[in-house]
Amino acid sequence: MSSHKNVLYAQSGGVTAVINASASGLITAARQYPNQIGKVYAARNGILGLLAEELIDTSFESDDAIAALKHTPGGAFGSCRYKLKDLAQNRSEYEQLIKVFSAHNIGYFFYNGGGDSQDTAHKIAQMGKQLDYPITCIGIPKTIDNDLPFTDNCPGYGSVAKYVAISTKEAGLDVASMASSSTKVFILEVMGRHAGWIAAAAGLIRQEKSEPPHLILFPEIAFNPTVFCNRVKEAVEANGYCVVVAAEGVKDENGQFLAQSGQKDAFGHEQLGGVAPYLASLIKRTLNYKNHWAVSDYLQRSARHIASEVDVDQAFELGKKALEFALAGKNAIMPIIVRTQESPYQWEVGSVDLDKVANQEKKMPRDFISQDGFEITEACRNYIAPLIQGEAYPPYHHGLPTYVKLKNILVPKILNPS
Amino acid sequence: MSSHKNVLYAQSGGVTAVINASASGLITAARQYPNQIGKVYAARNGILGLLAEELIDTSFESDDAIAALKHTPGGAFGSCRYKLKDLAQNRSEYEQLIKVFSAHNIGYFFYNGGGDSQDTAHKIAQMGKQLDYPITCIGIPKTIDNDLPFTDNCPGYGSVAKYVAISTKEAGLDVASMASSSTKVFILEVMGRHAGWIAAAAGLIRQEKSEPPHLILFPEIAFNPTVFCNRVKEAVEANGYCVVVAAEGVKDENGQFLAQSGQKDAFGHEQLGGVAPYLASLIKRTLNYKNHWAVSDYLQRSARHIASEVDVDQAFELGKKALEFALAGKNAIMPIIVRTQESPYQWEVGSVDLDKVANQEKKMPRDFISQDGFEITEACRNYIAPLIQGEAYPPYHHGLPTYVKLKNILVPKILNPS
Repeated sequence: MSSHKNVLYAQSGGVTAVINASASGLITAARQYPNQIGKVYAARNGILGLLAEELIDTSFESDDAIAALKHTPGGAFGSCRYKLKDLAQNRSEYEQLIKVFSAHNIGYFFYNGGGDSQDTAHKIAQMGKQLDYPITCIGIPKTIDNDLPFTDNCPGYGSVAKYVAISTKEAGLDVASMASSSTKVFILEVMGRHAGWIAAAAGLIRQEKSEPPHLILFPEIAFNPTVFCNRVKEAVEANGYCVVVAAEGVKDENGQFLAQSGQKDAFGHEQLGGVAPYLASLIKRTLNYKNHWAVSDYLQRSARHIASEVDVDQAFELGKKALEFALAGKNAIMPIIVRTQESPYQWEVGSVDLDKVANQEKKMPRDFISQDGFEITEACRNYIAPLIQGEAYPPYHHGLPTYVKLKNILVPKILNPS
Repeated sequence: MSSHKNVLYAQSGGVTAVINASASGLITAARQYPNQIGKVYAARNGILGLLAEELIDTSFESDDAIAALKHTPGGAFGSCRYKLKDLAQNRSEYEQLIKVFSAHNIGYFFYNGGGDSQDTAHKIAQMGKQLDYPITCIGIPKTIDNDLPFTDNCPGYGSVAKYVAISTKEAGLDVASMASSSTKVFILEVMGRHAGWIAAAAGLIRQEKSEPPHLILFPEIAFNPTVFCNRVKEAVEANGYCVVVAAEGVKDENGQFLAQSGQKDAFGHEQLGGVAPYLASLIKRTLNYKNHWAVSDYLQRSARHIASEVDVDQAFELGKKALEFALAGKNAIMPIIVRTQESPYQWEVGSVDLDKVANQEKKMPRDFISQDGFEITEACRNYIAPLIQGEAYPPYHHGLPTYVKLKNILVPKILNPS
């Protein structure tokens, strides 16, 4: 074993089209510093694998494989939905993490995830201090929801935004050409439990009032069925058809989700799905318009085939800078994207202390949504537009993208040898 | 007005990612023969516009705009769902068509659609003879359902097949990376009312038993909930997760659609949607696995951003050859794709008489589906694989595809001048 400290990287929560690009950036950068870093390990299935001492040795992966992570969606090492409890409630889990770190000579821990994960990274940093185990903890932002504070945007968001904008444009052309005698209303349900960032991206394609999306439904705006149906009717009468883009997390005036599947994820969040069929039924019943609906679900967040180049570049760069910040002695921080210029868009990587990030949710500012609650404003358009620039196409072989499958060879266990 | 006969082109039924490529091929070809053809008109909203004498004069469109049709999804002139009744039942509608043809000096009629439309084209050819109005009628095949006979495949199918294969691959990577602690089953509902061609395309991505899609549900195979749930359970136990791709037209053992929205289209077909939520609920209830589902609906058939190059080329070529066949004196035919070699795939354009095509539906051969009914066979893979080759990316501007919007200037009415 090298005398240098090893690196541990873990993916957390829902994966994205570009989370592996952050892994690629980090591991590529780490390979530039053989005199300062030992091995780069990755937790199998996120923090659960870390607790179980299931560590993947990335040194078995070729440089080509690590480069190919940049164009491979999903979570290459596995992710998980598992939230560590507070230190006070469950000290033993944190102690177990430190034990694994110690057994495998881990000096640097990188946690690639959303708000919950940044909170976990922060707690591990604190725990290291309390137990006198020197560990550098860096959070790497990731979430299609775009709801982390401080950073200009979250890696994963630009690509889902691009997918939703393009899909809405394409489906809109479809409906427009059929509306005279067939489908009059098309509803696209997109992700976004508490923040409407993803639904908002559909608004980028609208150049004129007559064009889709005619209505966007945001979780930030209470849904009123009468007002909604009137607006659908107006759009159909004015344009011949109506395209609606609805966030899964749209709530009624009592704060109830319009559609609840009754399933909950491990963070205790309601697992949603079904706003589109709800709206379809409402429109059919109230207005008797023939309609179609789509639910893009995982397709939207894994659509690496049409990822935003800006998003891929930022995800890669955040992984790379996370490693460089760690080597420069920074600790308990999260690298962030800083927008240095809006038009043309310019950005650089900055950082923020983890204790400021934890458990905050960045909803859409009210002035990004039109007064009537159904459109995005110019300010919102100016914010989102730069994030979908460029098409970072993956390579193809025989008509299908060549996504890499890693070897994922496990490190022999030390604490619990088999 | 030119003394040469004019051309009338009309789009029919559900649009595709490449129906405009056929229009592009036809109009581009027509512009090469100014000494043989007058103008190229397009019916506004398909046959309904033709009946209403709403004709678009495509000569106002630039060569660049006509070229851009090759990369623009939807129906650029509008399509419709409207089936002409039999000659015996509704002779007056056919007479009205001939009146419009006569008033606008139409000598060539091209009808771009599926089985119903080929039937209509055939009847119009017969009517021309009966009324002694010389009209050349050519059907141009189009349907994502791939259910027309004689042609190797139908333009529109290759692109939806590519979209479904890629989307399944991407979503499969997503589920695989989350399955240890979260979603275990992912269900993708795709189109296909009576034939499983679209669902079958997902099978292209499966190289090993452990890989998605673990189960494909075809309309050709009766659905048995017990057998299905057992197979889902086996897949989850063997691989940690299960990806299901279901055609919208899956039926139970009594021939009932699993999900019926209760809406009907103008052809009297049930409008389906909702197999995915049905299966999700069944799995949750029976196996208690956390699951996610997506319904790609119009997104799949309008996804020009990831269209198959083979499909785009074939659609363009069929439009071009349709025009050339007409000029060569052929009548009442449909140009078709002939597979001259499977590996490497080679094709050419042939033709078939319209009276043989009408109202036939090409379902999947039983030997394209595995014995157990949940997979495609090698024969099926060899058939579909060539059709998704190549990525015919559209041009982009500021992160969004630049789809063309035609001027669509109407020809002054002669029969009913306003």
